[in-house]
Amino acid sequence: MIIIGEKLNSTLKSVRPAIENYDDAAIQELAKKQYEAGASYIDVNAGVFYDDEPERLEWLVNTVQKVIDAPFSIDSPKPQAILAALKANKNTKPIINSITDERERYNAVMPLAAEYKTGVVALCMDDTGMPETVEDRVKIASRLIEKLTKEGISIEDIYIDPMIRPIGTGSHYGKVALETMRIVKSEYPEAHIVCGLSNISYGLPARKLLNQAFLVAAMAAGMDSAILDPLDKKLMAFLYATEALLGIDDYCINYLEKFREGELEV
Amino acid sequence: MIIIGEKLNSTLKSVRPAIENYDDAAIQELAKKQYEAGASYIDVNAGVFYDDEPERLEWLVNTVQKVIDAPFSIDSPKPQAILAALKANKNTKPIINSITDERERYNAVMPLAAEYKTGVVALCMDDTGMPETVEDRVKIASRLIEKLTKEGISIEDIYIDPMIRPIGTGSHYGKVALETMRIVKSEYPEAHIVCGLSNISYGLPARKLLNQAFLVAAMAAGMDSAILDPLDKKLMAFLYATEALLGIDDYCINYLEKFREGELEV
Repeated sequence: MIIIGEKLNSTLKSVRPAIENYDDAAIQELAKKQYEAGASYIDVNAGVFYDDEPERLEWLVNTVQKVIDAPFSIDSPKPQAILAALKANKNTKPIINSITDERERYNAVMPLAAEYKTGVVALCMDDTGMPETVEDRVKIASRLIEKLTKEGISIEDIYIDPMIRPIGTGSHYGKVALETMRIVKSEYPEAHIVCGLSNISYGLPARKLLNQAFLVAAMAAGMDSAILDPLDKKLMAFLYATEALLGIDDYCINYLEKFREGELEV
Repeated sequence: MIIIGEKLNSTLKSVRPAIENYDDAAIQELAKKQYEAGASYIDVNAGVFYDDEPERLEWLVNTVQKVIDAPFSIDSPKPQAILAALKANKNTKPIINSITDERERYNAVMPLAAEYKTGVVALCMDDTGMPETVEDRVKIASRLIEKLTKEGISIEDIYIDPMIRPIGTGSHYGKVALETMRIVKSEYPEAHIVCGLSNISYGLPARKLLNQAFLVAAMAAGMDSAILDPLDKKLMAFLYATEALLGIDDYCINYLEKFREGELEV
């Protein structure tokens, strides 16, 4: 699994002050902790700072890359902010999080991904809004993959996000997300499948339980990367267990190692 | 989900003495507890008592049906023991657990299922042994379904068990089981898919974690019944969460009720 550590996000109440106050030490600690806990990418988001998002995002990139060399997931829909982060970045190939098939957003973000040869999270969404059915999601995913690869972006650099809607707003949305993942992964095995896991449980109680179960089901459906909190030990334990169950973890070697390290006692 | 409560099993060290000593009260309590915790069927197994399995099984049926009216899962490969239990049974339609496509076992058990119009757990296994691949498992499942329905057993009464082998003995066995479930369920949507969940984790540490994750993955693959311990609150919490995620639990009504009852605080 490719883990995108979600903690450096200005929308998180506990993290926002550190970004607001340019608190290097706090940001660096959170970045390091996520990296040590298994994050392959560090997501950086300064979206709540409407007026100076580009500067804040650039600062986040500079602050983090002073202490770790993990690649970034640059989390913004705004080309100016993405560009500022891309220019500042000295670590290996980042991911832009995210593009959609909305005409304006696509035309603004795609050239940055192509020029900087980044990975890109592609949300199943277009100018008609968020799709309702599996078919519509798969259609947008296919269109985005065709268009992006035509622009020279390698299919291995595309992360399709089926757009999770909360099951609390429609009982079928879990099944819709899982089925979309399964079909896209079978039609485009080289593309990655990603999602923001916790959307699924929005508005319901015992969210962690639902998120853990959804992680398992999504991995079984073909999801091979996720934006999540790698410091959540229980969630990570389920991730390791599911890798063992799906045969991704040969001879359960990683699972056994995590057990010995006490990481599965949750 | 159709839950088959697994506790009244003579192979369980904690339960064997109650069967050995004909302890009515202990057996009845365990049966009632499982029923109250959501078991649709009560599995009864006296297999370790080689010399008098039929009498012991008959006693189990009689003892349990004095206090609850839940149908039984009659857990034995031996026709004499199954017949004794069937004759004693006064509750609604039981399941025979289990038949295989081994010639001798099939010919001995099938007539009992047909005569007593029971449900039947059909293991993907024949005289060549336990199949290695998904294809071989699906082939046996199809053959069993064709043969059993030809004998007048309704497809809704057939519970296909893909035969779980421990991932500790082969990293691919989890995937093999899940893929078998997915294919059989899509080819025979009216048949049930069942399994003995905990086999998957045999020989590995932190088994409960693996069993919880496998329950979720198997349900997502189409498993609609399971032989499990309904008194395991954490496992049951995952079951309710997964029903909500898969849209089996309309409007998450049952999930919300279980939360209010404190059943999800695990």
